[in-house]
Amino acid sequence: MNKNIIVMKFGGTSVGTIEKIKNVADRAIKSKSEGNNVVITVSAMGDTTDELIELASKISKNPPRREMDMLLSTGEQVSAALLAIAITEKGGRAVSLNGYQVGISTDDVFSDAKILTVKKDRIVSEFEKGNIVIVAGFQGITDANDITTLGRGGSDTTAVAVAAALNAKYCEIFTDVDGVFTTDPNVVSDAMKIKILSYDEMLELASSGAKVLHLRAVEFAKNHGVVIHVRSSFNNNEGTWIMDTENLNEKMEKAVVAGVSYDTNQVKISVFGIPDKPGIAAKLFEELAKAHINIDMIVQNVGEKGIAAISFTIKNEDLNTGRKVMEELKHKLEIKNIEIDTEIAKVSIVGAGMKSHPGVAAAMFSALGDKGINIEMISTSPIIISCVIRKERVKEAVKLLHNAFGLDKQKL
Amino acid sequence: MNKNIIVMKFGGTSVGTIEKIKNVADRAIKSKSEGNNVVITVSAMGDTTDELIELASKISKNPPRREMDMLLSTGEQVSAALLAIAITEKGGRAVSLNGYQVGISTDDVFSDAKILTVKKDRIVSEFEKGNIVIVAGFQGITDANDITTLGRGGSDTTAVAVAAALNAKYCEIFTDVDGVFTTDPNVVSDAMKIKILSYDEMLELASSGAKVLHLRAVEFAKNHGVVIHVRSSFNNNEGTWIMDTENLNEKMEKAVVAGVSYDTNQVKISVFGIPDKPGIAAKLFEELAKAHINIDMIVQNVGEKGIAAISFTIKNEDLNTGRKVMEELKHKLEIKNIEIDTEIAKVSIVGAGMKSHPGVAAAMFSALGDKGINIEMISTSPIIISCVIRKERVKEAVKLLHNAFGLDKQKL
Repeated sequence: MNKNIIVMKFGGTSVGTIEKIKNVADRAIKSKSEGNNVVITVSAMGDTTDELIELASKISKNPPRREMDMLLSTGEQVSAALLAIAITEKGGRAVSLNGYQVGISTDDVFSDAKILTVKKDRIVSEFEKGNIVIVAGFQGITDANDITTLGRGGSDTTAVAVAAALNAKYCEIFTDVDGVFTTDPNVVSDAMKIKILSYDEMLELASSGAKVLHLRAVEFAKNHGVVIHVRSSFNNNEGTWIMDTENLNEKMEKAVVAGVSYDTNQVKISVFGIPDKPGIAAKLFEELAKAHINIDMIVQNVGEKGIAAISFTIKNEDLNTGRKVMEELKHKLEIKNIEIDTEIAKVSIVGAGMKSHPGVAAAMFSALGDKGINIEMISTSPIIISCVIRKERVKEAVKLLHNAFGLDKQKL
Repeated sequence: MNKNIIVMKFGGTSVGTIEKIKNVADRAIKSKSEGNNVVITVSAMGDTTDELIELASKISKNPPRREMDMLLSTGEQVSAALLAIAITEKGGRAVSLNGYQVGISTDDVFSDAKILTVKKDRIVSEFEKGNIVIVAGFQGITDANDITTLGRGGSDTTAVAVAAALNAKYCEIFTDVDGVFTTDPNVVSDAMKIKILSYDEMLELASSGAKVLHLRAVEFAKNHGVVIHVRSSFNNNEGTWIMDTENLNEKMEKAVVAGVSYDTNQVKISVFGIPDKPGIAAKLFEELAKAHINIDMIVQNVGEKGIAAISFTIKNEDLNTGRKVMEELKHKLEIKNIEIDTEIAKVSIVGAGMKSHPGVAAAMFSALGDKGINIEMISTSPIIISCVIRKERVKEAVKLLHNAFGLDKQKL
C-alpha cells in the first residue's frame, strides 16, 4: 500500500458553486501539505448533468447513448478544470485530467459502462511534478477511443478504481451527510453514525435503500480491497469506514445488526394460477430480464390443485415496462390473474454479526408482529433480512427495529 | 483530391440554439444524400465560451492556460454531440469526435496552439460506416496528451486543417453573412459580394480589418491548397471562393482592387527624439515583441540634427502593456518624447491586380486628398496599400475608395 496516496471524491453538491469549489481546493491543499499525494475525483457541478440531458431531450426523445456520453462527460471536465484553477489560485499545484488522459478504460456499454482498467502512469508522473491530480469522475474511454459514462453515481466508482490502481491508503467519499447511519436520520432522530462496516454490510445497506454510496463502487472496493471513508464535506468529523472487518481487533465486539434500511420505491407483482409445471417460472423471469427489469424479492408457493402463485418486487420506474411484459405473458403462459400492488415497502436489517447469532430473524418478525405490522414477503441472506410490508407503516417499522436491536445505543 | 469529401464549418451563432442545430443537421443530411462524405466542424453554442471564461474569472484573474483549455474545449464537445443527436433524430447517421479522438495534434502553446498534424484514419473509418463526422472545433491535443485550444476563431482553422488532411474537395465556412464583401456593408450600402479571392487577397483583407475569416485558417489553406467557400448559414446562396487564382480562366478579368477594408481598433504611438544610432529602433521593437505586442505599421524618418522619429500602430487592447513598455524604454534609450494617439484608423485597399497596375497608390491618395482627408502614415505591399487617417473620417474614406475603384459595379 502506498501510505501517502489518498483519493478524495466530491459529488455534485460539493462542487455546486464557485465557493464550494474553493473549499474543496482548501481541503486538497491541506492534505497535500500533510505529506500526501492527493487525487481528487469530482462530479459535474450541481445540476449540470440534468441541464445537459434537458438540452438533448429538446432534440431527441431517444438520443444515441454514445453521443449522450460525449455530451455528459463534459460536465466533469468543467468542474475538474475549475478545481485545478482554484487550487492554483490558492498557491497549490494542480492538474486536471479527464477519463482518457488518465487512461480509465471501460467496456462499450454507453451510459452504463464498467471500468476495466485504470492506468497509473500519468497520475504518478503528475505526483512527481508535485501536482495535486484532479480526475474527472463518471467517465472512461473504450478501446475504440469512444467516451463512455459510468451511469449515475459513477464518480464514486471512478474514485475507488483510481484508489485501487494506485494502491492508495484509502478513498474518501465526501458527501452531504456525516457518514453511513444505523438508519435514515429523517425517520429515526436518534439514528447513529456507524464507525465501521464490512463491504458486504455496506452492499446490503446500499441495495436495500441506503443511498449514501453507489453500489458498484462498493463492489469494486470489495474486489480490490480499497478502504473507503464516507464523510461530510461540510466538517472535519470522522465518518464511516468501509473495509475488510475480518481482521479487526478481536476485542472489538461486532454489532449483530449494523443498520436498518428501507425502500419505498418498490412494487409487488403477484401472479396467480400459474400451471405448476417446470420452466414456467423460469420463462416468466427470462422475459422480464430481456426487458432489462431487475427483480428484487421473489416468493413462490403452490396453492390448491397444483396451481402456483408467485409474487415478486420490482422498482417503481420499471412498472410500465413490467406491466406490458406481464400482459403479454398472461396469454402465453395461461396465467389466471395478475395483481399489481404499489402500496408496499421493504424494510431490512443488515449485519455481519447475524451469521453467528441465531434468532435474529425471529426477533425481527416478532418486533413487527407485536405491533400488528403484517409481513407479506420475506427474503433472507447470511447478513440481511428483508420484509415487505404496507408502505404506510414503513417508518413505524424502521423505528421499531432500530429500537429493538439497540442501534440507538451502539458504540462501535 | 477526394471529390466527394466536403468539410463544413458552423460558428457559434450558427449552432447557438437547438433550432439552429437542427438546421445544420438538415444541411449535413442533404449534402450526404447528394453523395458526399461530410465532415462538420462546430464551434461552441452561442455564448458558451464566454460563460465558461466568466466562471473561471470568478476563481482567478490569471488562471493557468492549460486548465482554461481543458475548460473551454468542453463547449465544442457539447455542440458536436448535440449535432450528432440532431442528425440521428432526423434519420441520418452521425458520430461526434473531439480533437483527441480525431488526432488533431498541436504544439503546447495553450490557448493559442498551432495545429501540427491531423490524422485521417478515424474520420475515414467513420465514413466507411456511413457516418457524417462531426469534429469539435477549436481544439487539439499535445504529444503529452494535454488538451489545447487554438485561440479565438480557431474552429475555422480546424475545418481547414481537417480538409487538408482529407484532401477534401473544399471547405465551406458557414457564417452570418453571404460571403466576403468589397467592403463593410454596414458602411457602404452597395458593397458587393466578391465571388473569388486569392489566398493573399483574403489574408490582406483579414489582417486589415475584414472579420469574416480567421487569419490563421487562410494561411493554413494557402499552405495546403485548400479551397474555401465562405457562405451564409441562413440561405443557399453561393458565397465567396478563396482559392489559388493563378490558373483561373485567362478570359476572366481580375479586378485591380478586390476590396476596401478598415480597422478602427488601432492606436498610433509616436516616439520623438531618438538618437539616430544603429540598433535603437531594433531595441524598441524587441522589447515590444517580448511583451507579446504585435506591431502593425511602422514609419521612421530622420529629422533635424540626426534625431529620428518613429511612429507605429498597435492594437487597442495592447495599449496598456505598450504604454508600460514605452515608459521603461524612455529612460533607457534617451527618448525625448512619446505621444499616443487613439483617434486614428486604418483604411486599406486590397487586390492582386495591383501588382500589374501602376498608379493604384496614387489614385488612392488623390481620392482621399481631394476630400481633404489627411494621410498620416502609409504602408504598401504588392497587394495592399494602407493609410492611417483620423478615426472620425474613416467611414467617409471607405465610401470614397469603394466608389473610386468601381467596386459597386464589379462583376467578377
